[in-house]
Amino acid sequence: MNTRHLISRLLVTASALLTINLAQAASNAKYVFFFLGDGMANSQIQTTEAYLTTKNGDSATRAADLLKPENRLSMTKMPIQGMQTTYDAGALMTDSASAGTAFSCGTKTKSGVIGMDENLTTNYKSVAQIVHERGRTVGVLTSVSLDHATPAAYYASVTTRSNMNQIATQLTETGYEFFGGGGFASPTGPARAGDTSNNIWDLLQTEGYTVLNDRDAILALKNAKSSTKVVAINATLDTSAAMPYAIDRPATNLSLAEMTDVAATTLYKQAKDKGFFMMVEGGKIDWACHANDAVAAMGDVLDFDAAIQVALSFYDKHPRDTLIVVTGDHETGGMTVGQATNGYTAHYDRLLDQQHSFEYFAAHDWATHKANYAASYDWTKSDNLATNDNMKGLLKTDFGLDWDGLNDYQKEKLEDAYDKSMVGTNNNSSAENALLYGSYEPIIVTITHILNENASIGWTSYAHTGVPTPVYAKGGQADLFSGFYDNTDIPKRLLQAMGFNRINLPVVK
Amino acid sequence: MNTRHLISRLLVTASALLTINLAQAASNAKYVFFFLGDGMANSQIQTTEAYLTTKNGDSATRAADLLKPENRLSMTKMPIQGMQTTYDAGALMTDSASAGTAFSCGTKTKSGVIGMDENLTTNYKSVAQIVHERGRTVGVLTSVSLDHATPAAYYASVTTRSNMNQIATQLTETGYEFFGGGGFASPTGPARAGDTSNNIWDLLQTEGYTVLNDRDAILALKNAKSSTKVVAINATLDTSAAMPYAIDRPATNLSLAEMTDVAATTLYKQAKDKGFFMMVEGGKIDWACHANDAVAAMGDVLDFDAAIQVALSFYDKHPRDTLIVVTGDHETGGMTVGQATNGYTAHYDRLLDQQHSFEYFAAHDWATHKANYAASYDWTKSDNLATNDNMKGLLKTDFGLDWDGLNDYQKEKLEDAYDKSMVGTNNNSSAENALLYGSYEPIIVTITHILNENASIGWTSYAHTGVPTPVYAKGGQADLFSGFYDNTDIPKRLLQAMGFNRINLPVVK
Repeated sequence: MNTRHLISRLLVTASALLTINLAQAASNAKYVFFFLGDGMANSQIQTTEAYLTTKNGDSATRAADLLKPENRLSMTKMPIQGMQTTYDAGALMTDSASAGTAFSCGTKTKSGVIGMDENLTTNYKSVAQIVHERGRTVGVLTSVSLDHATPAAYYASVTTRSNMNQIATQLTETGYEFFGGGGFASPTGPARAGDTSNNIWDLLQTEGYTVLNDRDAILALKNAKSSTKVVAINATLDTSAAMPYAIDRPATNLSLAEMTDVAATTLYKQAKDKGFFMMVEGGKIDWACHANDAVAAMGDVLDFDAAIQVALSFYDKHPRDTLIVVTGDHETGGMTVGQATNGYTAHYDRLLDQQHSFEYFAAHDWATHKANYAASYDWTKSDNLATNDNMKGLLKTDFGLDWDGLNDYQKEKLEDAYDKSMVGTNNNSSAENALLYGSYEPIIVTITHILNENASIGWTSYAHTGVPTPVYAKGGQADLFSGFYDNTDIPKRLLQAMGFNRINLPVVK
Repeated sequence: MNTRHLISRLLVTASALLTINLAQAASNAKYVFFFLGDGMANSQIQTTEAYLTTKNGDSATRAADLLKPENRLSMTKMPIQGMQTTYDAGALMTDSASAGTAFSCGTKTKSGVIGMDENLTTNYKSVAQIVHERGRTVGVLTSVSLDHATPAAYYASVTTRSNMNQIATQLTETGYEFFGGGGFASPTGPARAGDTSNNIWDLLQTEGYTVLNDRDAILALKNAKSSTKVVAINATLDTSAAMPYAIDRPATNLSLAEMTDVAATTLYKQAKDKGFFMMVEGGKIDWACHANDAVAAMGDVLDFDAAIQVALSFYDKHPRDTLIVVTGDHETGGMTVGQATNGYTAHYDRLLDQQHSFEYFAAHDWATHKANYAASYDWTKSDNLATNDNMKGLLKTDFGLDWDGLNDYQKEKLEDAYDKSMVGTNNNSSAENALLYGSYEPIIVTITHILNENASIGWTSYAHTGVPTPVYAKGGQADLFSGFYDNTDIPKRLLQAMGFNRINLPVVK
């Protein structure tokens, strides 16, 4: 081979290898969506896929149906999958404040603490603050209130998540371009001793925020030529300033997906060459699981997944620059994909007739029923429910539960719970009542327990549990999120994905 | 730059890039360990790490302790992590036969079926058979009997897992170099109509197998100059021909780790240039979880993990050629890392005084107690346990449960269960008894339920559940096992890792 041939061959080889290596070294993620399903772990995801399969007219007891793409959530179809441990500085079962601090600041802290170390001496910057200072636009979205623990972790540092007015005050000072979803639980404070009493609405105005709470006005942001900083709050909220459960959504409200679409459009317009970082929380998956209401939880998982689909559509338009990461901060409720009563069989079709969440039922049909029947109630009788056609009718119309189809133990549990809910007394020991009802309305949590067990979904707790949660990722630098790691690694990997390799978390404020 | 310089620089560049690419293109996995924790999913793994942390004198409620390497299982420290769906052709909650068929043959089938399609018309080859035909040595190890569903999936094709004599007959025909762990549940058959009645011991001899059941003789295989085909059965087995639970292990037996060490040494010696494939099942994790006995389950997870450590030591000696894959076939028991009674607190120290498994207790102290007290038992009294010092003593000495420390509801449940276990009758409806005890000894399953809830471990079922299970991998081609996929993908990826890219599963026998 002469020199010329050798040079030529070497050039070809070098060129081919350079191509391979450049392709492998993905560019920094410019548009980053971080989705956080509060209280969402494998059980919440798997039950929702079985529920979706059933809603779509297929069978949740056939692998061939469960594996159909249309019966799968967007998140489980993402190419990258990881797993993270969730315990915090002082508990095997983390709370959302310490979990949020892990995800946002990259450090462990105690339950209840946000953006600070466990000794409550140092304030830390969140990944959102860090990239905002470096020119990225930032959005924080949640289906619960904007001053709740998970969103707060992306902008606040407080010794306790309960200081919600103090948290909201810090929100107004962030300069973040978009907040959206729920409202403020403590807009004028204080809800508790130690909290501040600022008027958040006034502070938002002072800081140049536009507050919107009309559906059309919020949707109009998509086509707005210019943008100010926005706080977009849904028109109808629950008593905690959170969005109602997805299955109860009023027409006046945006879904989490619609809000995500508005936010992505708004942040993208202002992002210019720097890009954006957006955190989207499905916050009421957790609340439904605390209450052991599977249908409400799965409805909110579907709503959360629809928001992820918005990000996937954004990815399709900007495939080289978009990174989507999805995870849950912890499991809630000790939810299981099976329950003793049905053994190896599952009956998700039995869930299809639940009309609304436990919360909606409590405020509507149940409230009316109790008002009508409580005065004449005699809890010493053992057949109050069995002889009340109105209540049996509600079991059927609101939950699809047929009284005559229940077994003796289920009837006994409903009678006991009915006594407790109607007049505050029943035959159980306080320890049994604590186990059966937690802090929830006895009759309603018993109804969802029985409905869920009939479908083959179990619950063991009204609190969080300590199981690791899955991580799903797609897009630029998504492979950073594969493997088994700790929740504090999430923001470290997010910064790395965005090209800020030299920032070591936690960063002192 | 002159020609010489150009050539020189191109050579350096090409050489550097070639080095990078060759390192990335890993060679085929020669020595393959596939570890299958039966009934093991995230909850079993996380509770065991919390239990291990506590056993090691650290706190299971501090992240700093839980994250220490010595408090982590080997499997969760592996670099590659995946997740797999587990449902089978006709159930959301798979059984071990269809799951085993998915892992071994790469196809979905119905619960109960091994190595066949769901219409029971076609027999499939397992990944073990396929690579054995291509010259690899093969080992099948399990802590349960060798004719049980999971090991059977690696060599047998039967319409029902219950035909254990038929399964064992097929074992004798495999030619596999090593079987080890438990024995045969039906060595002379038939245990049921439709099964065969072959003498498995005779068939093994005819086929040239050496059957060993002496600890020293099995350990001596490690230093043997030459090897025949071996069936190595532990000396002491339970009534199902399975190894006793790890926490009950008699000195006459090898642990699963010791058996794995013997098998790896034996297979390696005979493997020559072709390599080996070994399946190791931790089979009684599942059985302990069916019985809702967390301590027995975690003891077997630790034993299983110790076997994985043997493979990791092998990897250290053959890092270029070894692949280790670990997974669970399904979750069992609806185990949760939290329970309502304790909310956000966990007390794994309360588990440290359980001396033996539920099985051992049933056969020893409980059996003696029942023999002594059943004749004079009056189940209509409500304080049988409260007034029996012998039984209260057993709660304390065998499980560390202090009667006086229990709450009223726990005492009530123990009294009801005691009635049922002593004389077969109690005050509960049959539906309540089914939920509380499944098919287990009422008093014993109630003891483990209460002990577990005091530690903050919950259970919802006596059957399998449908949650996806994690996959961990290390070594050559381990990255094939990252991502979220179906259990039928496991053998496809194993074949790919071993270099058999052109074999499409399932392969008809």
